[in-house]
Amino acid sequence: MLNILVTNDDGIRAKGLRTLIEIARPFGNITVVAPQDPMSGMGHAITVNRPLRLSLLKKEENYQEYVCVGTPVDCVKIGLKVVLENQKVDLILSGINHGSNASSNVIYSGTMGAAIEGSMEGIKSVGFSLLDYHHDADFSQASDFIRKIIADAIEMPIPKGISLNVNIPKAQKEDIKGIKVCKQADAYWVEDYIARKDPWGLDYYWLTGEFVDKNICPDSDIHALRENYISIVPVQYDLTAFDVIGKLKNLNS
Amino acid sequence: MLNILVTNDDGIRAKGLRTLIEIARPFGNITVVAPQDPMSGMGHAITVNRPLRLSLLKKEENYQEYVCVGTPVDCVKIGLKVVLENQKVDLILSGINHGSNASSNVIYSGTMGAAIEGSMEGIKSVGFSLLDYHHDADFSQASDFIRKIIADAIEMPIPKGISLNVNIPKAQKEDIKGIKVCKQADAYWVEDYIARKDPWGLDYYWLTGEFVDKNICPDSDIHALRENYISIVPVQYDLTAFDVIGKLKNLNS
Repeated sequence: MLNILVTNDDGIRAKGLRTLIEIARPFGNITVVAPQDPMSGMGHAITVNRPLRLSLLKKEENYQEYVCVGTPVDCVKIGLKVVLENQKVDLILSGINHGSNASSNVIYSGTMGAAIEGSMEGIKSVGFSLLDYHHDADFSQASDFIRKIIADAIEMPIPKGISLNVNIPKAQKEDIKGIKVCKQADAYWVEDYIARKDPWGLDYYWLTGEFVDKNICPDSDIHALRENYISIVPVQYDLTAFDVIGKLKNLNS
Repeated sequence: MLNILVTNDDGIRAKGLRTLIEIARPFGNITVVAPQDPMSGMGHAITVNRPLRLSLLKKEENYQEYVCVGTPVDCVKIGLKVVLENQKVDLILSGINHGSNASSNVIYSGTMGAAIEGSMEGIKSVGFSLLDYHHDADFSQASDFIRKIIADAIEMPIPKGISLNVNIPKAQKEDIKGIKVCKQADAYWVEDYIARKDPWGLDYYWLTGEFVDKNICPDSDIHALRENYISIVPVQYDLTAFDVIGKLKNLNS
């Protein structure tokens, strides 16, 4: 029976996590380790300066569920080492995220942080996101596609060190045209801060922003999503810009 | 005069930050925005669910220093938008980190998170780390090299979207053999958790680990550092594994 670890970044109570657990259960022996609190934007953060807390919430046949006071990457690490005690894990599933992790969002994404961590451990890892930020988003339209992608990911070889970043358009099932393997689009956030005063007259700042996705090339995730395709980007954790090494050779000494 | 933003992940009081500020000051108009608390391991995390705080600590000719209750990436964002009000920034310097950010450490690094964020904004960005975790590490041996790298980074063209991950061996100045532009080594952490009981009998867990850097190839940062070279890895934020896209084409539908 497959050993599957499930996590997310919206926290243990998120509807997207519940949907992913439901889809994943027929595939194997499920261990859920999810953050106690919402962890959007936590990227690949780990908890270094404080200890972690871990609590068992539920245990039944082929299913156990833990909550961790930590980040999504902490959940993967403590799930593999403490909960599963270094047993072989076949698959890590992260999500379903409430909102897009396409394009450069992948960098800030706790959902994908967890999946990338899995790939660094040599485990097949897939992060799922639905392009709907609502906490009560309708994940039912996407369920069949997610089930298919999980089945395919189990069957097919995926090179070591690679995780999959799956984004699903907000659309009725019949309007989704299919699945496209793509590259990360070169889109970005133009951010701003809303400054407010607290009851004591001190400033505080809320991060806001607008996502700019002009001049998107046709083989990118953003383009696929606009055309109502599900996008899958293979993600690597080697950040080396190999084609730039030669251009910097005058730094050598 | 060059406009330079300085930040770090060890926090506003860290000796590494003070050293970097001292080295940077002759190069231009310096704005420091650094985290209030140590932010090691925060990677590319941003603060989404809470507002940020920002306080001016010092202002004098060509120098201003702010502390931010947020992550290193928050410091860059709020530095550019709120403190510098979208003025053109020529260079972002992050560090000097107390400890290595070579190899896969780059993924977890708040120091490099800040530098990568700068590169996403189209700004030349360099993260510096010294391979000495001690809070009172001796940065003086590295100062001349850092000064040279900053001068070179200002002069030379660096492709858009690329930041530099500079790691410096813990060694006497005369023992450092030079600078090598390298790739990110494929080394990794084998982690473990120390479980303890709090005064109320509840478990808590400290992340610990051992860094495994066997079978390191000669063109990697870890190899260069072992040979007492300073390593520079050009880092990109496009995580697409381009060579894998073709291998996953059976996922298309």
